[in-house]
Amino acid sequence: MNRPTTDKLWGGRFSEPTDAFVESFTASVSFDRRLYAADIRASVAHAHMLRATGVLSAEEANAIETGLGEIRATIDAGEFEWSDALEDVHMNLEAELTRRIGEVGKKLHTGRSRNDQVATSMRLYLREEIDALRGLMNELGSTLSNMALAHSDSVMPGFTHLQPAQCVTLGHHLLAWLAMLERDRARLDDLRKRVNQLPLGSAALAGTSIPINRELSAKLLGFEGICENSLDAVSDRDFVIEFGAFAAILMMHLSRWCEEIILWSSEQFGFVQLADRFTTGSSIMPQKKNPDVPELIRGKTGRVYGHLMSLLTLMKSQPLAYNRDNQEDKEPLFDTIDTVTSVICAMKGICEHLTFDTDTMCAAASRGLLEATDLAEYLVQKGLAFRDAHRVVGELVRTATARGRGLAELSLDELKATSSLIEADVIERLTADGSVRLRNHTGGTAPEQVRLAAMNARRTWQD
Amino acid sequence: MNRPTTDKLWGGRFSEPTDAFVESFTASVSFDRRLYAADIRASVAHAHMLRATGVLSAEEANAIETGLGEIRATIDAGEFEWSDALEDVHMNLEAELTRRIGEVGKKLHTGRSRNDQVATSMRLYLREEIDALRGLMNELGSTLSNMALAHSDSVMPGFTHLQPAQCVTLGHHLLAWLAMLERDRARLDDLRKRVNQLPLGSAALAGTSIPINRELSAKLLGFEGICENSLDAVSDRDFVIEFGAFAAILMMHLSRWCEEIILWSSEQFGFVQLADRFTTGSSIMPQKKNPDVPELIRGKTGRVYGHLMSLLTLMKSQPLAYNRDNQEDKEPLFDTIDTVTSVICAMKGICEHLTFDTDTMCAAASRGLLEATDLAEYLVQKGLAFRDAHRVVGELVRTATARGRGLAELSLDELKATSSLIEADVIERLTADGSVRLRNHTGGTAPEQVRLAAMNARRTWQD
Amino acid sequence: MNRPTTDKLWGGRFSEPTDAFVESFTASVSFDRRLYAADIRASVAHAHMLRATGVLSAEEANAIETGLGEIRATIDAGEFEWSDALEDVHMNLEAELTRRIGEVGKKLHTGRSRNDQVATSMRLYLREEIDALRGLMNELGSTLSNMALAHSDSVMPGFTHLQPAQCVTLGHHLLAWLAMLERDRARLDDLRKRVNQLPLGSAALAGTSIPINRELSAKLLGFEGICENSLDAVSDRDFVIEFGAFAAILMMHLSRWCEEIILWSSEQFGFVQLADRFTTGSSIMPQKKNPDVPELIRGKTGRVYGHLMSLLTLMKSQPLAYNRDNQEDKEPLFDTIDTVTSVICAMKGICEHLTFDTDTMCAAASRGLLEATDLAEYLVQKGLAFRDAHRVVGELVRTATARGRGLAELSLDELKATSSLIEADVIERLTADGSVRLRNHTGGTAPEQVRLAAMNARRTWQD
Amino acid sequence: MNRPTTDKLWGGRFSEPTDAFVESFTASVSFDRRLYAADIRASVAHAHMLRATGVLSAEEANAIETGLGEIRATIDAGEFEWSDALEDVHMNLEAELTRRIGEVGKKLHTGRSRNDQVATSMRLYLREEIDALRGLMNELGSTLSNMALAHSDSVMPGFTHLQPAQCVTLGHHLLAWLAMLERDRARLDDLRKRVNQLPLGSAALAGTSIPINRELSAKLLGFEGICENSLDAVSDRDFVIEFGAFAAILMMHLSRWCEEIILWSSEQFGFVQLADRFTTGSSIMPQKKNPDVPELIRGKTGRVYGHLMSLLTLMKSQPLAYNRDNQEDKEPLFDTIDTVTSVICAMKGICEHLTFDTDTMCAAASRGLLEATDLAEYLVQKGLAFRDAHRVVGELVRTATARGRGLAELSLDELKATSSLIEADVIERLTADGSVRLRNHTGGTAPEQVRLAAMNARRTWQD
Repeated sequence: MNRPTTDKLWGGRFSEPTDAFVESFTASVSFDRRLYAADIRASVAHAHMLRATGVLSAEEANAIETGLGEIRATIDAGEFEWSDALEDVHMNLEAELTRRIGEVGKKLHTGRSRNDQVATSMRLYLREEIDALRGLMNELGSTLSNMALAHSDSVMPGFTHLQPAQCVTLGHHLLAWLAMLERDRARLDDLRKRVNQLPLGSAALAGTSIPINRELSAKLLGFEGICENSLDAVSDRDFVIEFGAFAAILMMHLSRWCEEIILWSSEQFGFVQLADRFTTGSSIMPQKKNPDVPELIRGKTGRVYGHLMSLLTLMKSQPLAYNRDNQEDKEPLFDTIDTVTSVICAMKGICEHLTFDTDTMCAAASRGLLEATDLAEYLVQKGLAFRDAHRVVGELVRTATARGRGLAELSLDELKATSSLIEADVIERLTADGSVRLRNHTGGTAPEQVRLAAMNARRTWQD
Repeated sequence: MNRPTTDKLWGGRFSEPTDAFVESFTASVSFDRRLYAADIRASVAHAHMLRATGVLSAEEANAIETGLGEIRATIDAGEFEWSDALEDVHMNLEAELTRRIGEVGKKLHTGRSRNDQVATSMRLYLREEIDALRGLMNELGSTLSNMALAHSDSVMPGFTHLQPAQCVTLGHHLLAWLAMLERDRARLDDLRKRVNQLPLGSAALAGTSIPINRELSAKLLGFEGICENSLDAVSDRDFVIEFGAFAAILMMHLSRWCEEIILWSSEQFGFVQLADRFTTGSSIMPQKKNPDVPELIRGKTGRVYGHLMSLLTLMKSQPLAYNRDNQEDKEPLFDTIDTVTSVICAMKGICEHLTFDTDTMCAAASRGLLEATDLAEYLVQKGLAFRDAHRVVGELVRTATARGRGLAELSLDELKATSSLIEADVIERLTADGSVRLRNHTGGTAPEQVRLAAMNARRTWQD
Repeated sequence: MNRPTTDKLWGGRFSEPTDAFVESFTASVSFDRRLYAADIRASVAHAHMLRATGVLSAEEANAIETGLGEIRATIDAGEFEWSDALEDVHMNLEAELTRRIGEVGKKLHTGRSRNDQVATSMRLYLREEIDALRGLMNELGSTLSNMALAHSDSVMPGFTHLQPAQCVTLGHHLLAWLAMLERDRARLDDLRKRVNQLPLGSAALAGTSIPINRELSAKLLGFEGICENSLDAVSDRDFVIEFGAFAAILMMHLSRWCEEIILWSSEQFGFVQLADRFTTGSSIMPQKKNPDVPELIRGKTGRVYGHLMSLLTLMKSQPLAYNRDNQEDKEPLFDTIDTVTSVICAMKGICEHLTFDTDTMCAAASRGLLEATDLAEYLVQKGLAFRDAHRVVGELVRTATARGRGLAELSLDELKATSSLIEADVIERLTADGSVRLRNHTGGTAPEQVRLAAMNARRTWQD
Repeated sequence: MNRPTTDKLWGGRFSEPTDAFVESFTASVSFDRRLYAADIRASVAHAHMLRATGVLSAEEANAIETGLGEIRATIDAGEFEWSDALEDVHMNLEAELTRRIGEVGKKLHTGRSRNDQVATSMRLYLREEIDALRGLMNELGSTLSNMALAHSDSVMPGFTHLQPAQCVTLGHHLLAWLAMLERDRARLDDLRKRVNQLPLGSAALAGTSIPINRELSAKLLGFEGICENSLDAVSDRDFVIEFGAFAAILMMHLSRWCEEIILWSSEQFGFVQLADRFTTGSSIMPQKKNPDVPELIRGKTGRVYGHLMSLLTLMKSQPLAYNRDNQEDKEPLFDTIDTVTSVICAMKGICEHLTFDTDTMCAAASRGLLEATDLAEYLVQKGLAFRDAHRVVGELVRTATARGRGLAELSLDELKATSSLIEADVIERLTADGSVRLRNHTGGTAPEQVRLAAMNARRTWQD
């Protein structure tokens, strides 16, 4: 007689037990257990769908629901014993269910496979994490909007090539940060639609001969639609990669914010102070107060980029349908979720603990040559062609630099000596305040525009 | 008097000419000249906007339009002389315009900077490439839909872990490919919205004191909206990265299709033949006929992944606003566009030159054990719990394997010996045709479902 | 009086305690505790060096050694309580040491900083892992050498473009795998030299005014040399990245081996069987026996590639010297080590559980056209120019294919009809055995060469 | 009769000509023509080896050498007509050779294949590029050594976390850059050994029955050894990837140097000036002088990282032996070579055009709290345990900060008030010069050490 020589749930055709190294090498329960709540929720929906199509009785479906509910409570309480020998979260849950409710437990896996089950659980899980992240992003966006509003008329140097370029307002700069976050939010909303599709019903790869109702399963689980083609549904991991790409761009943005905060915190810039409680010290240098939090965020960019690359590599050249390679999709996804969630929190904390030294910023904007473009545009408005105006001002810059002065420190006569078009009304242009006030159009840096934009942003980021 | 010692258009403040190595190291005109048509289009719109706000006269704007039109014609004809000393496409065009139309040419750069100009030209250019690519994807989708319809009832083995798993229809498999392409299309549509926004009017980083009307510029260029914040607008390259991420996922999909075509073309599988005209030979082995085109597509996956990583690295930790690093955004973008465009064409060509050996496929589906799941589901429908049914069939598989036979080759008595639930009606389940016919639900592999799905796809991919 | 308001070891200058979120966000002890043994070893050496330079007394150095030894035993036994509030492994150990041995513990950190300390511990740790990995690679190499020797004259088809190309011996193919591993070993040996350098003595970034003897520290810890420049020594993570690059190439190699094992295990190829104990089954399809282990290894390639990209991104554009970003170097390194170590074990297990179906392989080599190149080379030896010989055989291939036969199945008359140079002595060339036997030069596939190469390999991998 | 229907050199067995799109999609001659000199050199050596084994006559070998020499001259002169229809550099050269010297040209491809030929040409080409790069690195290293020597006692603030940490010497900082370059050089030397191995003689994948002498070919081409296993030799691209990894680490280093140069060039730091001839201006802002060259180098980091990722992706999961995917190895390699070569030149140019503002640097080092660690170490030398000394100094830092002063600006009484161990001899410690002078050990920042190290470096980088 054929006695199974392995106690694996799939072991009927096997003639020897699994190698112990293989068992531990292939087990995923140490990390995929994180899916338990989603997996249970999907199983309950599956049972009720099977009841609706007549495969299970109402009693059976209810017994499954109750059993799984109790298991969930046990896990929530930290009292569940996970087993590597049972490979993954799915088999652990099914085995425990059968242990608790007996024969009926063996019916739960009717008309499905781990292939469509894991894809469903991951989507459910990710959808919930996306919604939580969306909320945190809103908080960060609100915080930034308020900061921008408060600093709508604080003047600072705007940089290109890290060289002072033109005067801007601090509020304007903060709204530039916010503009990045806004695109991140839009991308998250777009990808959520593609996450929120149901693979269940695809079974191993090709559907099932058991009567099922995929539309009902989708409805019970709040999915917007169905991953129709079954071969595709079990092998598709686009939703993981697309989230990874979203996260990579988000981290890139935050790396830019943090780079600026670190720069601005330096003694040389002195534009900003991080509260003591948001910094750390040195084990050897007693005077140090380091911007560790923005540095760590900047460093975590690599982590998230790496996960994206990992996932893209993983899926390259895989023939259809499911291959075991795909077990490797989970850890990068989970760590990406954890990272972006924690850095959004950290970023909000940083914002709340920043003090801008607006005097230093204003002083940096006021010395030097930042009004050169304003002066060129002044000459244009006096009738000079822009390219000629640029050259005239370039010469003035050389003169001023040679004399160790800023443009505003040249006398009107000195200015006139270079171009007779320059008149007394130029003076306003040569102040930081005057300079920003005149760039007063949609998206410009004028305090009036910044106030408007910040108030709009407050509304947008409220929900 | 201060005589400029360099002839650069920005050279007023400089006291020595640019180093020759620096000139060639920093010049971008060898690759950014590709933007000329977009750049000219944006300049013409800019001139007309300046006319509307009173900065230019109608004559001036028209002279600029005419001059740029002639330059465009010269470039189209391959007769333009590009100069490295003029750095980039923008300066080449402006210098030539002034050479042709005189003083007025010097007014074109009023109220703008290369920073907002290049961002505008790249977005215009990319938008057009996206629309062209979208059209090619439609052609590929149409081709695949028709192939799927034609093969809606051809039976083949479906694989998981590259092991025969269950019978599927070839049309079903082809629709799985199409499902990937459908998500690519959705992502492309989503990102197009974010590409199609106008940065112009941001000037260097902070707007301009020249009267401008950004909404009018947007309208003239067909942009859906404005990249509002000027600091963000000139430093944002999300649209490039998002296109890179879209392209990476698309290439990943095609690498999977090609992997299968290569596998199926092997002597061992023999599922498919590529026409001679779509293959190449060997310089040494006279008998070789190689699937070079799918191999090259698979290989090009790396290229597109690499460009994505390149762009993400590029933008990491850049402080605002524009930094010269960003010149490095163009080559990866251009090569990504060229690659995805050519591989979509190549893929369509492959599809048109494929001949499926449906007899070999059907034979591969018919031998062996692919109906094991069907048999288990049969037992479920006879009342056995699924997990028990799985074990019973597992034992039958062991028996059959030991006897060197397939499940269908066991006699009814042999089947009954393992489970008394098995009756004569099982026979239909144990054929490839019967097996696929029963998985008849949304997204299942039954010919009826595949026909429906393929006809839907034909409609979707027509436009 | 200035009472510190934080109990951090570096807290003297701080006026408020660290934020709880910051404490947990920045803490690394959950993962860097893995360095404890290396860290203790380095601390003991540091203490003895300080004794030699007169900074510590012999009693003090011995007290530190004894204290740290006891702590190590406690940790080994799993009884140490790690504290997030103490940030990292270093501060946890120092605080515990002082708790145990009192005042003397406070002297341990003399003349060093966490910056040089962590770099030292990581290098020590990595060096040991490299040596362990080296041993495992030797075992795998030995296994493969023996397999190659055992199959030095088993004939199989060699593939290019996944099309049968020429007959080769299985031993030859296995030695190709081994050649990859040999380069990995050489790279590992090269990089070990660069890992095995001492940063200690660099202190925070610029050395110390405390009398130290870096050469002595290096000797005590078995380092080959000193990371001389102190600014570089604390900020250099090349050794981590170089290990990551080594590991990425190694994984790429294994992904190729595994791809072949998966292909060869397919029903269509049938070249190889994995023992039941080294495969797993399906939750739904009772007949499945899947090559999960090679699939997982192939999947883990992405993980290691991702870590490399993560590390490269991390270090990009960091100004000197140490920045907190660098805390992010540990997890990718640790996971890379764990992954390559476990996959080398897994690969050895696979090799030990493979059974080659040499009859199927030989049959696949014997049908068809694999001797076409041999025939062309035959004609060359009869005096035809190679390019002409190639064309003649190409025509014979067309003839044979049209008649549904292999080259060896054409009659001598049919062969002669195409080229009168062909004589009876051609027959030997048209057999698989004859074909491989004649490619008898260094690195060729002839059994004689393979035997020689395999025996050489056995010696090389024994060490 | 079988008339070939294609004029391809491999076309004997084909029944229709290659599709025009396929011809252009698969052609590589537009980029692999760069290998022509290496390819010709390898062909000449191959011909002479065949002469030595009796396959060619001396006349034939000489005719080939002469013919190829003339072709090379034609190409050098820019007068060769490359043809896409002939696919690649190899076929272009062979076809032209036969056109020129007739029948003998058809014998050149005896006993080799494009598979071993292209691997050989790439290795030859790369070896030459490595040697050229090595020379450029030497020049850069020399330049830096001299700069370091010149600035061995200029004091500047050393940073960690971009916060002033301790005083260092500028020469010490420059030597930190050089230490990175030294590791790059060591890696380049290590990988060159693995590049410098001969694949020729592997033919398509399995060697040849033509009499060959691989050792002779290696000797003629200056290779150190032979890529023995033929299957491995034609499919191995490790040498390309390893060069890519070397280049990625090198670029990471340069991105760090450039980050610092950009920071130091900012108005806020003011540590350094780039000569006008090594900077560029703005199209709109007349005062701008931008550090474009270091910015571009920093930006090019992404490009090289991307190529590495591209190559790793390319090779993932490729079954043996050669697959057409590998054609994609060339462009990333070539662009990596071009990039690192040009950035090393650019970096040398930057170094030669840098002027350090040592007064500003020294002033930045002299204000504030950078001597805190020195003070703590002073207390240690007076007998306090380091951890206690750290806390005492931390309190002094709080006091000084509250009073708006640096440590050196506290009176001796104020110092003593915190610790009675402090005596008059502390004063020297509290100056920048005194602070650096005391860190006088191997790799420390003391001018004496820096001078020694710089002089050593000069010797090392001379050759």
